[in-house]
Amino acid sequence: MSETPAADPTPESPPQKVEERSRRAVLLGGVAAAGIGAASAVGLESFVSGREAQARDAARGEADTANGLRKVPFHGEHQAGVEMLPQAHQSLVSLALRPEADRDTIRRLLVTLTDDAARLTAGNYALADSEPELALVPARLTITFGFGRGLVDRVAPGAAPTWLTDLPPFGVDRLQDRWNGGDLVLQIAADDPLTVAHAQRMLLKDSRTATTVKWIQTGFLRAYGSERAGRTPRNLLGQVDGTKNVTPGTPDYTNVVWQGSTTNPDWLAGGTGFVVRRIEMLLDKWDRLDRSGRELSVGRRMDSGAPLTGKREDDEPDFSATTPLGFPVIAEFAHIRRARTDDPRQRIFRRAYNYDLTPEGDQVSNSGMIFTSFQHDVTAQFLPIQRRIDEVDLLNEWVVPIGSAVFAIPPGCAEGGFIGETLFAG
Amino acid sequence: MSETPAADPTPESPPQKVEERSRRAVLLGGVAAAGIGAASAVGLESFVSGREAQARDAARGEADTANGLRKVPFHGEHQAGVEMLPQAHQSLVSLALRPEADRDTIRRLLVTLTDDAARLTAGNYALADSEPELALVPARLTITFGFGRGLVDRVAPGAAPTWLTDLPPFGVDRLQDRWNGGDLVLQIAADDPLTVAHAQRMLLKDSRTATTVKWIQTGFLRAYGSERAGRTPRNLLGQVDGTKNVTPGTPDYTNVVWQGSTTNPDWLAGGTGFVVRRIEMLLDKWDRLDRSGRELSVGRRMDSGAPLTGKREDDEPDFSATTPLGFPVIAEFAHIRRARTDDPRQRIFRRAYNYDLTPEGDQVSNSGMIFTSFQHDVTAQFLPIQRRIDEVDLLNEWVVPIGSAVFAIPPGCAEGGFIGETLFAG
Repeated sequence: MSETPAADPTPESPPQKVEERSRRAVLLGGVAAAGIGAASAVGLESFVSGREAQARDAARGEADTANGLRKVPFHGEHQAGVEMLPQAHQSLVSLALRPEADRDTIRRLLVTLTDDAARLTAGNYALADSEPELALVPARLTITFGFGRGLVDRVAPGAAPTWLTDLPPFGVDRLQDRWNGGDLVLQIAADDPLTVAHAQRMLLKDSRTATTVKWIQTGFLRAYGSERAGRTPRNLLGQVDGTKNVTPGTPDYTNVVWQGSTTNPDWLAGGTGFVVRRIEMLLDKWDRLDRSGRELSVGRRMDSGAPLTGKREDDEPDFSATTPLGFPVIAEFAHIRRARTDDPRQRIFRRAYNYDLTPEGDQVSNSGMIFTSFQHDVTAQFLPIQRRIDEVDLLNEWVVPIGSAVFAIPPGCAEGGFIGETLFAG
Repeated sequence: MSETPAADPTPESPPQKVEERSRRAVLLGGVAAAGIGAASAVGLESFVSGREAQARDAARGEADTANGLRKVPFHGEHQAGVEMLPQAHQSLVSLALRPEADRDTIRRLLVTLTDDAARLTAGNYALADSEPELALVPARLTITFGFGRGLVDRVAPGAAPTWLTDLPPFGVDRLQDRWNGGDLVLQIAADDPLTVAHAQRMLLKDSRTATTVKWIQTGFLRAYGSERAGRTPRNLLGQVDGTKNVTPGTPDYTNVVWQGSTTNPDWLAGGTGFVVRRIEMLLDKWDRLDRSGRELSVGRRMDSGAPLTGKREDDEPDFSATTPLGFPVIAEFAHIRRARTDDPRQRIFRRAYNYDLTPEGDQVSNSGMIFTSFQHDVTAQFLPIQRRIDEVDLLNEWVVPIGSAVFAIPPGCAEGGFIGETLFAG
């Protein structure tokens, strides 16, 4: 291993920086003074401690800066940005094709954007990148393409899967057209917000002749370095949210997301379906609900995320449990009961982000969730869940869908190919 | 040191996670099999390597999650959030006092907000925090209070320093009232965006009876873990921006920021002045400028940030250097020349964040910078710099001030006190 001194740890404030340095000087002093050859003279124990301390400090220094250099491979059977733990920051960019953009224009657009995405996710600048230095910190950047019905129909009429259409209207919906639909969506995600901003700008510059922006939804989770990776995140309602998700890298995941249903067209093999729901949270109203009321509506404890019949987050809820008075412990209309089913087909992979905008008028909060889910058949997997929630779910009092869109995620491509090439092959 | 296995490193994708685990199993296998007592039998070198590897892995695991627990002390002579390296995320919340809010109301407001800030920055939930679990990741959270002229006049007429007023109009300004002024500003900053969102919501809930929101400006820098701490950040123009800043923890810093000028009132001792300028960057226009044009307008290289007469970022520019044809290497109107002076009084501590909003109309970008600076005398330190830039600065073609505000940052307080108490003492 390298004997180079560790990089400075992130100082919290100057006094602590000084303290940190002194502490390290003490830790490393013995080794520096004794030198490696003098190990036997200074005694095995202090020698080992010194080397350990040095290794630990070097590792800490690396870890403090290494996340910026992490890369997720772009090319492959599936697109990147789906089967992985979510990054801290995400921007969903929905584009509308200009009326004059024809099949050839769309092909050129996808070739160009694929090239940009392959370069940027590898930590290289895109062709014609006017701020190339901003491209050098990939921080797990992924760029994932999704096609709306409009794009598929323009490129290959009749090639759309049956589920690639607007979701049916739900009673809880208060959709605003400014958050609906789109012909092409770009999911741009990384652990660094500047990386996301730069990639978005680059992709928009290369899209401008063929498209206009329909909407952009930026969201966030806990930052890299804040919590253990893979921990179920909390949303702005304070809930532990997404406990029953399928796990990337498992056969389950393949079944839910990648295994094409028989109704999917050939060009989508290796791809999947993508639902976007913008869900406003009525936090000001939520504030008037006490903690037990919140737990009742969700069916889980606020602190641990455990079901009301269990102790740990991943305990299975016991829907038959009753209170001494004979009422169900988990209410009939609690979210946990409505969102869940025993039907193994009704499963999805959710990837949800928080948003928090400037309050308007008398609002204290203008916040919510950018819910997205991946599933190979939106009709068979997503719709039944959404229908049950729509019928009756206590949580509906505080969450309101205000935007909705469905996209087909085409398969990945090899080097030299482009995302969407299978749609053009027919 | 602890023998506990390290926490899982952040997996980038499931295959890499598996690979990482195998690699660690190999690294740790020797030690685990041999046991510590068998050190002499397996040879010093492999023993040391195993222990080092273990120490390194443990440190990496810690570093991956430790930033969330870092705290910046709230109480002290000065307010927190000023003399430190900036956090990755910041929200500036400008509040307008309701017409009926009198001196007593303002006092109660500040007592309450101080209590909230002291708790939240320590990683504790605030009183009446309805999502207490969101408060447990401070991630270097700081909450800094600034008073506008309106608040000072309402509490203690005549107590405002002379510079606590709107900046004079500049020719480059295109100010929009929705980004100007305010009676009370809260600078909420942390390395985690969810921490900032939760703190903001808590503070707004406790402000609603006395204030309304004038504006909120959220911004970002590189994430924790992306780059070496303390590195001069790049802005969305791609520039290395802020090279000549004063350094926290130095006597210089005290002179520029904390040392009260003779014109400052007593209640501001230990405080400073705060300027906020929202600066739109015309990135679509900037795109039409080639790299040498950009370097000419700034006077620095785009890659390294070095002055055009130097090689490294911190090289002093040579303003007298000329080209073979006799022209100055650094143009007369380059930003670096206009922003700089030899007058030691004209110095500030800048703390600038990027913003990136959804493009409007035909824009590709709706981006810019939330420039803020701390200096004890806005008139003597900040104004002359701004005047020179306003007169003529090549960069003015691409950057447009659209918001402006000035606040007084009162001193810090001890436990049991509240921010602003010195203003009420008179």
